[in-house]
Amino acid sequence: MAGSRMKLELCRVAQGRSRLGVLKGLGRTGQHSLEVPGCLLHTHLGSVPHLTQDTLHTLSNLPSVTQVTLSNIAEHQDVLEEFKGGFRKFAGLHDTVLYCSLHDPATPSPTGYTTNKTVSVWGSGGRIELTVAKFMALQKSVQPDWYQSMADGETWQNGTSRKRVRKSVDRTLAHLDECLLLHQKSQELEGVDVFGVVEGGDILEERLRSARETAKRPVAGFCLDGLQTGCMEQTLRTQLITAVTKELPEDKPRLMQGVGRPDEVLACVEAGVDLFESFFPFQVTERGCALCFSFNISPDPELAVLELDEARDTTEETQQNGDVNLDDQTQMTSFEIDLKDKRYQDDFRPLVEGCGCYCCKNHQRAYLHHLLVTNELLAGVLLMIHNTAHYHAFFGALREALASDKLELLKRRVLGERGGRKD
Amino acid sequence: MAGSRMKLELCRVAQGRSRLGVLKGLGRTGQHSLEVPGCLLHTHLGSVPHLTQDTLHTLSNLPSVTQVTLSNIAEHQDVLEEFKGGFRKFAGLHDTVLYCSLHDPATPSPTGYTTNKTVSVWGSGGRIELTVAKFMALQKSVQPDWYQSMADGETWQNGTSRKRVRKSVDRTLAHLDECLLLHQKSQELEGVDVFGVVEGGDILEERLRSARETAKRPVAGFCLDGLQTGCMEQTLRTQLITAVTKELPEDKPRLMQGVGRPDEVLACVEAGVDLFESFFPFQVTERGCALCFSFNISPDPELAVLELDEARDTTEETQQNGDVNLDDQTQMTSFEIDLKDKRYQDDFRPLVEGCGCYCCKNHQRAYLHHLLVTNELLAGVLLMIHNTAHYHAFFGALREALASDKLELLKRRVLGERGGRKD
Repeated sequence: MAGSRMKLELCRVAQGRSRLGVLKGLGRTGQHSLEVPGCLLHTHLGSVPHLTQDTLHTLSNLPSVTQVTLSNIAEHQDVLEEFKGGFRKFAGLHDTVLYCSLHDPATPSPTGYTTNKTVSVWGSGGRIELTVAKFMALQKSVQPDWYQSMADGETWQNGTSRKRVRKSVDRTLAHLDECLLLHQKSQELEGVDVFGVVEGGDILEERLRSARETAKRPVAGFCLDGLQTGCMEQTLRTQLITAVTKELPEDKPRLMQGVGRPDEVLACVEAGVDLFESFFPFQVTERGCALCFSFNISPDPELAVLELDEARDTTEETQQNGDVNLDDQTQMTSFEIDLKDKRYQDDFRPLVEGCGCYCCKNHQRAYLHHLLVTNELLAGVLLMIHNTAHYHAFFGALREALASDKLELLKRRVLGERGGRKD
Repeated sequence: MAGSRMKLELCRVAQGRSRLGVLKGLGRTGQHSLEVPGCLLHTHLGSVPHLTQDTLHTLSNLPSVTQVTLSNIAEHQDVLEEFKGGFRKFAGLHDTVLYCSLHDPATPSPTGYTTNKTVSVWGSGGRIELTVAKFMALQKSVQPDWYQSMADGETWQNGTSRKRVRKSVDRTLAHLDECLLLHQKSQELEGVDVFGVVEGGDILEERLRSARETAKRPVAGFCLDGLQTGCMEQTLRTQLITAVTKELPEDKPRLMQGVGRPDEVLACVEAGVDLFESFFPFQVTERGCALCFSFNISPDPELAVLELDEARDTTEETQQNGDVNLDDQTQMTSFEIDLKDKRYQDDFRPLVEGCGCYCCKNHQRAYLHHLLVTNELLAGVLLMIHNTAHYHAFFGALREALASDKLELLKRRVLGERGGRKD
């Protein structure tokens, strides 16, 4: 932490908890920043699935931080060590802050492999067991600007015993201490930021203990683990986050792991979360869907009416498409449309009217439908462009709403409720 | 044909047969041209697999003609008819000449479904039977600038009987006459070019009859069908092409169907072929390989020596990789390297030294290897960029070689023979 330059400057805290600000001093030279609430760019091996760096950078509003995960990288340790230039250079990434997390939020890991001294990650070649020593050796070869400390997060399943949850908190704190010790001894990791991980399953007192103890350590910020989509109701999640964030220092960022759905993002921000992982657009793309939820909080009354009509159309569509199982991450949600559906075969409109992304400017729903039903490889590319653009634009709207005190309006738009207009 | 503007201007015929020239007057307004020997841009539903139009157009040397196939399009006839704007607009294609062929050269069709009055194409939903009336209705909804006449090409299997081959020639001529009749009556197809199809299997006299009879019809050029990779040896193919092209008018182009391998392309050009379908880079990409064969005929002696060394390296690599079954289109060839091979895991060079494509400028073999072994979706995108660029650059070198009388040198480079240098 001595070398850490990361600094959260809050410019507004709405309703006591929703934080608007800028995370400054990112990257080894400290020249990057990231607005909060915000999200990191989710990648596989450094690439946003389907997209080249050049295609990616045709999008505006991209976060300045790229997330890579040890579950993707661990099996390539030998090669990275031989390469020496670090993962950013290995993957040919443009100028970006590199954040290295343990697991890929888009791919749940099997449980039952954690020991007192190790955690496991799953790569394409199977399980890789990490001790703190191996974990830190990996960080040295990856050369990130910022990484998540090693953690035992196996408490997300319903009904995990109190004893197991307690052990997870203890282990995670022990891992953090070991990581910090090795970190401080390492010249290569000077100036690199470490986030401590708050565990505690669904047990309030363990959550509080984990938060308090982690906050005592010299970390640059906090990952909130074990609260991901599918493992608990938003009500309980909100309660836990609200309680936990009270224990955390105001001036350090809180990164939510495994939550990406817009409604859950909004609830988490209201509970005091600053950062998210952007794996949700990838999941939507993989099921052949397009994000189409509205987040327009334009004060232009004419635009707002148009928007309202459009949102109504979309709601009808998505309701017909069904929104059955909110807990299964592979199920489609009410924020997207299923372009494989026959109704889109002669729908000559763009995915989202007025969207400025390459896909919406050049192609219609009907063409996407035909690419999907014939399994053409371009379908994933085009959907990923749109979904990435749409999702990051949503975060832009979220910050705008916080700045202009329109969070309630934004919530109504996103959740598709038809209350009276606020402005 | 009355409305056809297509015109082949030959500027050189080397060794009596290899033709160098420009195909002019392409497109409905006649403003496009294509250099020959050349190839058409192979697409699936208008898209080069994996690539957006924007990514595609970062490549130089792209052909001005995009090939789409009825096997991809036929099942979408209703939608295209409703859309009315034609396939080019439906697929969001940039300014390009649209050529519509019957089958996809990258996907062999099952045989046994052809009748006197129909041929079948296979889309994602199964078989679609086409009469000439349906075939022509499809052309009207696709609105191409140029299309291949309906043909019975089911004679490519070894040992097809003389009777069956004769029937194929007869049917194909009958289809052509019917197509031309409907074409001439159609206002929508005014100014659109038709290519007649030369069939005849491996029987010389049927090939000659097919060529002579087709040449009597008002077609803008000729497709050579039933000679594709996997169905005959190059020696026999060369004999048949040489004999056939003697029967065809000098001033009309000859398009070879189903041949894409560089060695076979060179042999076909020497036998008098002008145009090819560029499905080969796609096949190479799908098997996780990168084109790396040399075609540098630079007169700079220093460069040439470097090139020679490099080619030798490459040859070693590809020979080790094996070049077992030349006839199976899914097998890798000696023109590519298999990036999934473990030897590339720590190879920090670009795919091809000096290649100017996005992939080679930004990424190394090791990164591609890791993307491939972990099944990352970017792998196909990057390989498709390189393979497309490399293949079309090869056609550029082929034209340059014909212009500067260096075809023998180019052949040695491409085939990897180590004879003395010519220049």
